Amino acid sequence: MTKLTHTQDIWQARYAQSSPLSQIDPLVARLMGHRSVRAYSDRAVEDDVLLQAIAAAQSASTSSNLQAWSVVAVRDPAKRARLSALCGNQRHINDAPVFLIWLVDWSRLRRIAATQDQPSDGTDYLESYTVGVVDAALAAQNAAVALEALGLGLVYIGGIRNHPEDVAAELGLPSGTFALVGMSIGYPDPARPADIKPRLSQATILHNETYDSAPEQAAVAAYDAAMVDFQRAQGRGDLPWSATAVQRVKGPGSLSGRERLRDALQNLGLPLI
Amino acid sequence: MTKLTHTQDIWQARYAQSSPLSQIDPLVARLMGHRSVRAYSDRAVEDDVLLQAIAAAQSASTSSNLQAWSVVAVRDPAKRARLSALCGNQRHINDAPVFLIWLVDWSRLRRIAATQDQPSDGTDYLESYTVGVVDAALAAQNAAVALEALGLGLVYIGGIRNHPEDVAAELGLPSGTFALVGMSIGYPDPARPADIKPRLSQATILHNETYDSAPEQAAVAAYDAAMVDFQRAQGRGDLPWSATAVQRVKGPGSLSGRERLRDALQNLGLPLI
Repeated sequence: MTKLTHTQDIWQARYAQSSPLSQIDPLVARLMGHRSVRAYSDRAVEDDVLLQAIAAAQSASTSSNLQAWSVVAVRDPAKRARLSALCGNQRHINDAPVFLIWLVDWSRLRRIAATQDQPSDGTDYLESYTVGVVDAALAAQNAAVALEALGLGLVYIGGIRNHPEDVAAELGLPSGTFALVGMSIGYPDPARPADIKPRLSQATILHNETYDSAPEQAAVAAYDAAMVDFQRAQGRGDLPWSATAVQRVKGPGSLSGRERLRDALQNLGLPLI
Repeated sequence: MTKLTHTQDIWQARYAQSSPLSQIDPLVARLMGHRSVRAYSDRAVEDDVLLQAIAAAQSASTSSNLQAWSVVAVRDPAKRARLSALCGNQRHINDAPVFLIWLVDWSRLRRIAATQDQPSDGTDYLESYTVGVVDAALAAQNAAVALEALGLGLVYIGGIRNHPEDVAAELGLPSGTFALVGMSIGYPDPARPADIKPRLSQATILHNETYDSAPEQAAVAAYDAAMVDFQRAQGRGDLPWSATAVQRVKGPGSLSGRERLRDALQNLGLPLI
């Protein structure tokens, strides 16, 4: 993994543009240096690392302090292989020593409400699903930052939503929980480094006072060109980003089975009223 | 704001337990030191700070690199006052110099698809909503980490979902976008410091190999006691956490109007099939 220490280098890698800043805070530079890691060394993940990552995760904000999330850590190789198959055969789930599965978890507060003989019907609503997804995502991202600080690499796995009921059975999840996103973690293999992927310009993403799509067309054209360069350098074809992205959203058939997520959540005790 | 530099102190503050670790990585300790900041000094937020926060946000992982989010930065005091009213009159939205609103944004890819004469029906699905919520939350949390590194404080505002259509009108949002979560940011007022709030024990949140709720009952009882101590020290009553939390989820009437989120999203061009 190339160490980028200079403001210009890291901005160039992330935006394919020269930096408008002469200096970046060292921690911000580390965040900007994130890349998904899919190749791992043989080194095991120490228990202390997991303790720190979860402590970071729990320190993220959580809506009304409800803490509507949980996480399952899977080390068992046979279990990881079964989960990999359910995620569309993603080899890095087999390869990484630990697979974390971040859960939306309303089962905990339902159990607590039951011990108090109180209803918990609010957890059935789309709003509560949204709260649980945000809570779990904030937690996961804090863990990601902590893991990278501790020298590990990781990749998020959306494929965990391909077969939600089967994943729930594999993990023994109670009704009211849902495996939102996976995360393969391990120490990066120095022989197979990952690169920083460029992103759309800030002009496309950041809006001042009101939403403004005016800069978008030119920015997307420039980004398409930058991504073609990036992919060519990696030997991964030369389709423009905008063409690839549009393919991913063209219809239900492009959603890898996740077009039935509503039914799956209903089956998992989350009706999303 | 008390600076906690010792492993035992920070673990005690976060978990109301003695630390199982003798040492914590400095960045993890900073993440563990997060607290929501609702009182700000007069110092303005520099443009360079926002540039760095958004660069950090964009460097977070994003599903299939679709980048299905945007953010609106509101500085205008009158606009912040109107948004504060829509969020249930949260005074810190008026007080903080900048209010960031993190958006699920499928309008961008819909516009891009339209220029290619391609459909984008996949964006109508609950799966795509989920992707957008995760993308926006990961981005927001990276920004939060960056802002705290730069000396700022922040608080997330879920109240932005109280009146989604009105918020969309105020921000000029196109169909296919949704204001997921707000974030008031500014330099903390040193005269009104915030404290680290304890969380549930790791035994409640982290599950090994399979979900296990066995440690939960004892852990929640201990947490209730810790939170009563914490609230008393802050002069904020002595209701146990579990009682307060159950009140928040008892039914649609406890969701601050957000029980109609499904209808609101439909009105905003996100039918969530």
